[in-house]
Amino acid sequence: MLQTKIIPPTESANQAPLLIKRLLLSGVRYEKTREIVYRDLVRYNYATFNERVARLANALSEAGVKAGDTVAVMDWDSHRYLECMFAIPMIGAVLHTINIRLSADQILYTMNHAEDKFVLVNSEFVPLYKGIESQLTTVAKTILLTDAPEKTADIANLVGEYENLLAAASTKYDFPDFDENSVATTFYTTGTTGNPKGVYFTHRQLVLHTLAEASVLGSLDSVRLLGTSDVYMPITPMFHVHAWGIPYVATMLGVKQVYPGRYEPDMLCRLIREEKVTFSHCVPTILQMMLNAPSAQGYDFGGLKVIIGGSALNRALYEAAKARGIQLTAAYGMSETCPLISCGHINDELFAGSESERISYRIKAGVPVPLVEAAIMAADGSLLPADGETQGELVLRAPWLTMGYFNEPQKSAELWEHGWLHTGDVATLDDFGFIDIRDRIKDVIKTGGEWLSSLELEDLISRHPAVREVAVVGIADPQWGERPFALLVVREGQTLDARGLKEHLKPFVEQGSINKWAIPSQIALVTDIPKTSVGKLDKKRIRLDIAQWQAAGSAFLSTL
Amino acid sequence: MLQTKIIPPTESANQAPLLIKRLLLSGVRYEKTREIVYRDLVRYNYATFNERVARLANALSEAGVKAGDTVAVMDWDSHRYLECMFAIPMIGAVLHTINIRLSADQILYTMNHAEDKFVLVNSEFVPLYKGIESQLTTVAKTILLTDAPEKTADIANLVGEYENLLAAASTKYDFPDFDENSVATTFYTTGTTGNPKGVYFTHRQLVLHTLAEASVLGSLDSVRLLGTSDVYMPITPMFHVHAWGIPYVATMLGVKQVYPGRYEPDMLCRLIREEKVTFSHCVPTILQMMLNAPSAQGYDFGGLKVIIGGSALNRALYEAAKARGIQLTAAYGMSETCPLISCGHINDELFAGSESERISYRIKAGVPVPLVEAAIMAADGSLLPADGETQGELVLRAPWLTMGYFNEPQKSAELWEHGWLHTGDVATLDDFGFIDIRDRIKDVIKTGGEWLSSLELEDLISRHPAVREVAVVGIADPQWGERPFALLVVREGQTLDARGLKEHLKPFVEQGSINKWAIPSQIALVTDIPKTSVGKLDKKRIRLDIAQWQAAGSAFLSTL
Repeated sequence: MLQTKIIPPTESANQAPLLIKRLLLSGVRYEKTREIVYRDLVRYNYATFNERVARLANALSEAGVKAGDTVAVMDWDSHRYLECMFAIPMIGAVLHTINIRLSADQILYTMNHAEDKFVLVNSEFVPLYKGIESQLTTVAKTILLTDAPEKTADIANLVGEYENLLAAASTKYDFPDFDENSVATTFYTTGTTGNPKGVYFTHRQLVLHTLAEASVLGSLDSVRLLGTSDVYMPITPMFHVHAWGIPYVATMLGVKQVYPGRYEPDMLCRLIREEKVTFSHCVPTILQMMLNAPSAQGYDFGGLKVIIGGSALNRALYEAAKARGIQLTAAYGMSETCPLISCGHINDELFAGSESERISYRIKAGVPVPLVEAAIMAADGSLLPADGETQGELVLRAPWLTMGYFNEPQKSAELWEHGWLHTGDVATLDDFGFIDIRDRIKDVIKTGGEWLSSLELEDLISRHPAVREVAVVGIADPQWGERPFALLVVREGQTLDARGLKEHLKPFVEQGSINKWAIPSQIALVTDIPKTSVGKLDKKRIRLDIAQWQAAGSAFLSTL
Repeated sequence: MLQTKIIPPTESANQAPLLIKRLLLSGVRYEKTREIVYRDLVRYNYATFNERVARLANALSEAGVKAGDTVAVMDWDSHRYLECMFAIPMIGAVLHTINIRLSADQILYTMNHAEDKFVLVNSEFVPLYKGIESQLTTVAKTILLTDAPEKTADIANLVGEYENLLAAASTKYDFPDFDENSVATTFYTTGTTGNPKGVYFTHRQLVLHTLAEASVLGSLDSVRLLGTSDVYMPITPMFHVHAWGIPYVATMLGVKQVYPGRYEPDMLCRLIREEKVTFSHCVPTILQMMLNAPSAQGYDFGGLKVIIGGSALNRALYEAAKARGIQLTAAYGMSETCPLISCGHINDELFAGSESERISYRIKAGVPVPLVEAAIMAADGSLLPADGETQGELVLRAPWLTMGYFNEPQKSAELWEHGWLHTGDVATLDDFGFIDIRDRIKDVIKTGGEWLSSLELEDLISRHPAVREVAVVGIADPQWGERPFALLVVREGQTLDARGLKEHLKPFVEQGSINKWAIPSQIALVTDIPKTSVGKLDKKRIRLDIAQWQAAGSAFLSTL
């Protein structure tokens, strides 16, 4: 290590460690009349929020929660979840945000693996919880969350109901200082194989992520995504990387926040309209669902700004949203990265071309946000040129990446091989910093001796007017190694066969965008494409389905 | 310390320490065509900036600069200064920004006290430098900065001229990782007594300050002060708390930057017009000077956003600026605080009153920015209520406050007494977080048994139409303890005497804003009010002047 000048601090100096409690020193104080809203059920202001965080801290402490304990939450997006995102880490405990879309077996696995000591469970999940209760190895006590009049449930070791506990608790809690490298949150990410893996983030990491995210959301050239007078509602679950960390940003700045519970399109659209929501974020699937919702027909979302992440943003969705008054911004990140890594950004001086050309940049994964270092790596660990052409694995360094998977030394070492975090995504990086995700490493198709991006092919197919949704995977082919197989959902009253799709793709072959082996020789028309618990295309499941259909000689397959 | 959960990072994980080099990973890459401009002399883009930072690092290393060495800069605001703000800390050395408005003796004192090993000196300061050269105890080598055709100077141990050295240096430098708690910058602050004191900031502190400042400048309710398409020019010297840290923010975001050299009103106004500057910051005096500049007459600054700090912002200046198209935002900080502590912020929901009422909030010191904890302390170290009424010393905690004064253990301990940084300012803090600075502790006037704020009295006097500038100090009075004494600069062609001032202040006494002892019994009309090197009213000097005038029975004193 370089011998730099280091001066020990004055003995009585306070160094103000980067703890989550410091995020409550600004917006919460000077915007105290701003509201936090939960569906049409609860509405209170920041002054009350601040008190409730202290009440929750007291209730948890009285229930026996100690610093270092892990406290799990099973809830839909709510004001209660937001309170947990602050109070649990602020008393030195670890918040485990349970992915309630996993199977009961997977939830059980994650709760035992994370060593959860306390669980806050929404009454809607009580049946699920009761199914696994007897197999939980570390849970000592439970707290009930409910919107129903019934304030109790038949689960073991129930301390009480959340609101009752808060009502009985003091509004004062002297939140202590401790090491900023203490774990604040943990949650589990599902890979394509094996058990879910636990990522974790420290107070320091979450505070840094919050500051960097706030600086990006405020300063973007084309559109200010989040200023203090915006109204924010997440449409990415709070269990999924803390709703991309934006509740922390919104709270720090003192922005009005709206929590929608579970994602029912009608409720989402109604909250947007009635609470005057101006800023949100979601995966493409949810946006599509909202645009199609009966209650949203004829409604102009004018002025709504939405960050799209989780899956690639395609041109068709960008334009469909724009036609309804929604300004989309692409962003990129993953569970391991806290998550914000890059965000769409158009420098007006640089990209003075047609709107069509600009859109081709807007739908990329964006440019790295402050403090993030991105590079493209070859399989041997060498870094590849950032020329917009060379493909390789996207690797990252930043002050808020998970330092490993909980209790998984082997997988942790693989994640951080060569001193960079491996994303598992194939990408290019251009001279202006734009990240362009080409595919998941596992989803790249090798056909006719050439690499084909399933994402790129999905984008081209989605431009066909009959196509509502598409997924492409590679299937084994004796002659070409692999050939692409396309799963399609077509629009109501329309149809498409393999020949029609070929006609649609031919011009792209002629232009040289794709090679001739890229035209799928087989497609399947389905009513629904399988998705993972966080709304991404579930390609593992799709491959299994295709194998079964092929074995059965299924009738809805169309072959060239 | 609480026993929280701490997981050691995976061995190969990169924790990305908070080093200044990380600020160059975002804006500099994706805004590379944006410009950095120095007067009408130099203009280049961020790609070149990035190369020049590497060239400077190589040139300094070749000149013998090692990690831990202190490298001093004596320059006006320039692109070179910006390059030094990055390259010097990025090689692990310490940047000493010399306050070139101090006396030669004081500069000599600070250079020896800081243990400067290398000095970069602008040719305009060569005469000054030669006067102290022989008494410098630690300087080994010098580098010349110049805008003149002559690329050499007669100073000892001259390595060469900056541009020549950069031209000969490589554009590649592999900036190392090191401890984020390494000192990055130092500079000296002049108190009312004794020698200047050296404050210092670490890489970690500067990175955190940059992120928090960016988040505030981007997200403010009423006006976005700084987005990536703004054009920034500092009008607070770069030697003074790194021009309030905003060059770091602008560079991180990739904003066009304009550096004006020395502050000549005509040049400043011309650059604002020609380079389309939209965002700046300065002390009230400089703004007043610009508004009065002959070249600015008739010019509408439409759209210019300016942060005012360093001294209190008064209503008259706020309104005068507004009439010329300038939107002012008050901010508060000091050399010891990096400096940003609070920033003017109007929540439209809360402050829905008349514009006149809103202005009374706009000219306060604002509300604490994220991560800053502010409190009001009594002389015994106890914290006082934040009720908007109770006055006490403003004390602070935040992750970017200086940890002490360099080599001054006694003064460092006083600065951090009771675990809070002491600002020396008397203030109130209200229920919405607004800080209202009432006075410097040393400038409060005790008259007729009551405390009187010299700042408040200055504000009331400045509302008289004949008054251009005013300073109030307390002078000893056998009957009342102290009485206020006002120094006035009146507008051209106008005059004012003590009786006229009394007439002006009477209504405020009647309203109960001030008590009757607050009306100055003596005033002096002067052509200029003494200021410190950073443009604040120099009350120490004013008291000395008054004592001399009184002793001499000076004719321009007017007595009730």
